[in-house]
Amino acid sequence: MKIGVLGTGATGLTIGSKLVELGHDVMVGSRDEANPNAVAWAKDAHRNALYGTFMNAAEFGEIIFNCTLGSASLNALNLAGAGNLKGKILIDTSNPLDRSTDTWTLTVCNTDSLGEQIQRAFPDTKVVKTLNTVNANVMINPSKLIEKTVVFVSGNDIEAKATVVMILRDWFGWRNIIDLGNITTARSVEMYVLLWHSLRTAISSQRFNIKVVTA
Amino acid sequence: MKIGVLGTGATGLTIGSKLVELGHDVMVGSRDEANPNAVAWAKDAHRNALYGTFMNAAEFGEIIFNCTLGSASLNALNLAGAGNLKGKILIDTSNPLDRSTDTWTLTVCNTDSLGEQIQRAFPDTKVVKTLNTVNANVMINPSKLIEKTVVFVSGNDIEAKATVVMILRDWFGWRNIIDLGNITTARSVEMYVLLWHSLRTAISSQRFNIKVVTA
Repeated sequence: MKIGVLGTGATGLTIGSKLVELGHDVMVGSRDEANPNAVAWAKDAHRNALYGTFMNAAEFGEIIFNCTLGSASLNALNLAGAGNLKGKILIDTSNPLDRSTDTWTLTVCNTDSLGEQIQRAFPDTKVVKTLNTVNANVMINPSKLIEKTVVFVSGNDIEAKATVVMILRDWFGWRNIIDLGNITTARSVEMYVLLWHSLRTAISSQRFNIKVVTA
Repeated sequence: MKIGVLGTGATGLTIGSKLVELGHDVMVGSRDEANPNAVAWAKDAHRNALYGTFMNAAEFGEIIFNCTLGSASLNALNLAGAGNLKGKILIDTSNPLDRSTDTWTLTVCNTDSLGEQIQRAFPDTKVVKTLNTVNANVMINPSKLIEKTVVFVSGNDIEAKATVVMILRDWFGWRNIIDLGNITTARSVEMYVLLWHSLRTAISSQRFNIKVVTA
């Protein structure tokens, strides 16, 4: 499958590499046509790995991953272009974080979320929020944790969510996937990220996740 | 030990009953001197179970549990009186929830929290935020879940947190207790409650909790 990955930070390139490894054709997109990270990545990844602008990557992909920083996501998606995103699934892994101090805060929360903002800005795109609750390495290697943990999906389009569940399960190896509901539940997973940050500090590791335990 | 429990909803009476069962002298406090829930509870609980106003309960207890609704907590604590809370540990289990619609929101979050508001309002009281991430039954029966799960403590006073950790472990049976840091980390656990709510809806149960899984 042809996949566009927006963002050339750790998340974008980690997901991009996994997708290339799975045999997909991947274009990572950034603000600049030849972002040094993206150029180096494409060289390393050998085959099926391309780079370009946000617009190039959005046009290229049948499915798009948003792996940009939350603070830059709406701008990046505008550069990608509504027409290039139209009718497509947009897998939104971003978090609306302000990391300017040690105490992280969110730039949107409680009565709205970045997932909802993106869905409102691109009504013809099927936004599915997922994977934002874990570090990039855990996203594509959930089985590296010592027990099976949980990942969430939030979105308005049932079929798009089913496709994303398939991707999470069959491509990335997730075994416990909970559908939280429509895109407003992006608030829940985005607001969880402050607890993730506190936990990371408390346990001095980014390689962790949560598991839901019932009675 | 003499313990004051503020609030006569499910959380207050569930914790109150557990404390009575453990042999402590417990006074549950409410706005009214003879709240019907509290009167019935004291009758059922037989020995060591008293009821009174918020002020009576705060005066009575050597340690105080805040089990009031978050929206009413500051008012209840003001009625309890700063003098009656002075120098004592206040175990804050409350959540600043607006439940007026199906989509829960918080009345304070992100750059502040109810835990911090309470600590600021009562600087001579040792506020420890904990237990707000689980349902009342799980608070006092963590071993009823099929695996060991996690509970968090947040607070500025190290010795007060050590006492609360002892209470959680020896009285309530918690085996996995994570100290998140000072009272600003109350933001993390209060903001988590929206994910708790989404999970409750998704799995149709309130009897669950999370476990932290590492690599």
